[in-house]
Amino acid sequence: MDSEQLREYGHRMVDFIADYYKTIEDFPVLSQVQPGYLHNILPDSAPDHPETLDQVLDDVRAKILPGVTHWQSPSFFAYYPCNSSVAGFLGEMLSAGLNIAGFSWITSPAATELEMIVLDWLAKLLNLPEKFLSKGDGGGVIQGSASEAVLVVLIAARDKVLRSIGKNALGKLVVYSSDQTHSALQKACQIAGIHPENCRVLKTDSSTNYALCPESLQEAVSRDLEAGLIPFFLCANVGTTSSTAVDPLAALGKIAKSNEMWFHVDAAYAGSACICPEFRQYIDGVETADSFNMNAHKWFLTNFDCSLLWVKDQYALTEALSTNPEYLKNKASQANLVVDYKDWQIPLGRRFRSLKLWMVLRLYGSEYLKSYIRNHVKLAQDFEELVSQDPNFEIVTPRIFALVCFRLVPCENDEKKCNNRNRELLDAVNSSGKLFISHTALSGKIVLRCAIGAPLTEEKHVKEAWKVIQEKASYLLHK
Amino acid sequence: MDSEQLREYGHRMVDFIADYYKTIEDFPVLSQVQPGYLHNILPDSAPDHPETLDQVLDDVRAKILPGVTHWQSPSFFAYYPCNSSVAGFLGEMLSAGLNIAGFSWITSPAATELEMIVLDWLAKLLNLPEKFLSKGDGGGVIQGSASEAVLVVLIAARDKVLRSIGKNALGKLVVYSSDQTHSALQKACQIAGIHPENCRVLKTDSSTNYALCPESLQEAVSRDLEAGLIPFFLCANVGTTSSTAVDPLAALGKIAKSNEMWFHVDAAYAGSACICPEFRQYIDGVETADSFNMNAHKWFLTNFDCSLLWVKDQYALTEALSTNPEYLKNKASQANLVVDYKDWQIPLGRRFRSLKLWMVLRLYGSEYLKSYIRNHVKLAQDFEELVSQDPNFEIVTPRIFALVCFRLVPCENDEKKCNNRNRELLDAVNSSGKLFISHTALSGKIVLRCAIGAPLTEEKHVKEAWKVIQEKASYLLHK
Repeated sequence: MDSEQLREYGHRMVDFIADYYKTIEDFPVLSQVQPGYLHNILPDSAPDHPETLDQVLDDVRAKILPGVTHWQSPSFFAYYPCNSSVAGFLGEMLSAGLNIAGFSWITSPAATELEMIVLDWLAKLLNLPEKFLSKGDGGGVIQGSASEAVLVVLIAARDKVLRSIGKNALGKLVVYSSDQTHSALQKACQIAGIHPENCRVLKTDSSTNYALCPESLQEAVSRDLEAGLIPFFLCANVGTTSSTAVDPLAALGKIAKSNEMWFHVDAAYAGSACICPEFRQYIDGVETADSFNMNAHKWFLTNFDCSLLWVKDQYALTEALSTNPEYLKNKASQANLVVDYKDWQIPLGRRFRSLKLWMVLRLYGSEYLKSYIRNHVKLAQDFEELVSQDPNFEIVTPRIFALVCFRLVPCENDEKKCNNRNRELLDAVNSSGKLFISHTALSGKIVLRCAIGAPLTEEKHVKEAWKVIQEKASYLLHK
Repeated sequence: MDSEQLREYGHRMVDFIADYYKTIEDFPVLSQVQPGYLHNILPDSAPDHPETLDQVLDDVRAKILPGVTHWQSPSFFAYYPCNSSVAGFLGEMLSAGLNIAGFSWITSPAATELEMIVLDWLAKLLNLPEKFLSKGDGGGVIQGSASEAVLVVLIAARDKVLRSIGKNALGKLVVYSSDQTHSALQKACQIAGIHPENCRVLKTDSSTNYALCPESLQEAVSRDLEAGLIPFFLCANVGTTSSTAVDPLAALGKIAKSNEMWFHVDAAYAGSACICPEFRQYIDGVETADSFNMNAHKWFLTNFDCSLLWVKDQYALTEALSTNPEYLKNKASQANLVVDYKDWQIPLGRRFRSLKLWMVLRLYGSEYLKSYIRNHVKLAQDFEELVSQDPNFEIVTPRIFALVCFRLVPCENDEKKCNNRNRELLDAVNSSGKLFISHTALSGKIVLRCAIGAPLTEEKHVKEAWKVIQEKASYLLHK
């Protein structure tokens, strides 16, 4: 680690990355390589002796970039966005430069304290209840992903109830969520040992735009109570992965509270939008929640990974996840003067991730961040409008944020044929390399998803995307 | 994300970080701030409007850096090292620049394939058995930390056995490890729902240099079998956190195999050294293991986080951790043509972490990496020599790698007083800001740990560290 070599090579890498962004539209958005492509063009062992940065960068250009799916392309509309920004990138650089392993406060007090502060800042922008702020028993923490966020609160909730009724009751614990909930919850349940038959995946349909119906939750809870089971965890969604469905938090929270269940709100995607007053309504009722999660790395200009989790009761987390070996003991921790985030998460070590969120908030400011969100929503409205004007297509669910769910309409009421045709269209569009969209299924219908939210996306990219989709559709419909 | 702003600001950040390394010896190694220091000097909400990069960097200098514990300082000897390097830093930059969320192969084929390839490269450098290579049922994967590595294999092992005997047998499953095993295993057991009374923490002592004794394992297993319990998981250590103890893998593995237990080897710290032929002996017997873990982010010049896990049976992982929602389905995955690392880990999304390991291996080459390890071991020998020459001190356990465990000797055989004195010495040394060492306990003795392994550490830093320790000791002993 020579500072002058770092300077020289670092400058070259900055130029490499800046050039990448300058030419990002020249690449196929979805990588078009075949499985195993890289194995054939890289050596099968590490070199004995140093190679040059030129050799490595040449290989990045020639061998790695063709295998990259360009999430930062302005024509990336698949899944949900994974935002990069100048501020987020600088934060990552600084974090990598300091390269701390911030498990306990003492291992870098600034890492813990800045995280508490910026999570409070964001809680205020979201107008979250006071109880989620760090000054009392609550607080925020950066997790790597929404999967880790839901896992740690599930474990906290599990252990809280098992502490009072005994650990052999694990087989009686029941988890509730809609069938639109992200697979992260299913995975968390697998890890936490919740019995699969005790995971209530409550059916939703188009009548509620795929939101979880409180009556359906109440029924399921009552049935389980009658059967001697123990309802203990509810996961609600604000902005589902498939279609941005928004569950009615207040009504669901009421049921959760009256049954002493942990109530987790997954707003991984849509949480970012809720800093805008006109979208804040979608998290009304969050005051009944025990935990709330949004991914700043999705739609908030903060480079991956940065998943924000707030809890009202930090002790539920730390009682489930704490360890205290001698080799990590220190006066500040022993005296309970500080937060040690190692006890709020799965891993021990943690990067200094709050830097990038802090830089995003400072270098852009909350007003710009609101306009950033609104611009994508506007572009999604435009796309929705284009789709609705084409009789070959239909909008499948009403758009709320910046995701448009659409499909080719069925011909002769043949849903199976319609699904196949939409799959064909998806392939045709994505293999063009001109844009990347993804799909989902809603009530058995294959649905195409156009999620607008890449930082570089402008009106022209949305129009061009629609043009390609129409062309490919036209070819399919007439062949 | 404007490419020219990224270029301009990126260059400034490179200079900022290069300057940081140039002046890193000017900072107290262990941050000397008080709990809550940052809360008082940062605003309590995010700005509405953009601030400048100058303002942010000024704040980093004035407010953040004083709260940083400088893991990259040449006088950082605490815990285990957390290496940064030019190559590792460049890899982090490129990963942040591309900013992909590489959960499935299709989301960036290069991310998955490069990871498979470099993990094979490293497996070959370590001379791991063929079964850990990616060409068969095995393979390597980058986890965030050794905690996540042991958790995923514990879950895989748990579910493998529960699939055959039924999930209600969870309360019968028993985990074995020595009392020197990292707290990560205890945490993994908590998360996986293994009953605490079924976690056998087998006692070690100085007679084996804190290595787990196979007889003690065999006895415990036999006792549990007689009691109708089900031994299912053994975690052995190569290089424990407290004192780099090395468990006898071959003998332990034999017991694990004859009892159909999953055998995990945690070589988080010492694994790196095993690329040198003279240290390879310490993982002899790894052929009996089901999984093997080393942290490239500790002592292998790869920036945090980069924890390498190899397994012989990837399907044990994927059967426990797979999810397959419609919105993530794609032809390559459905046709089983590719590895989707999302099913080998806890989170869904993952960064392009193989880039940094690839760059480390290419820009340095394996011969330099061996000499890098050997240099630290030599410096630790020097330090050990200095300690042994001072009658006030003793070496507590024989040094194997680059950690020296030492302490002030007891006076009048008073161990309690001796422990207090060593604690006082630890505080005095660390509050000097001139170096940072940490401590542990071995057989009730408080032991000071000098872990040599920061990339910038040279002979002079080790000598200076010893001088400070002697001075502080002399003051304590004569006051």
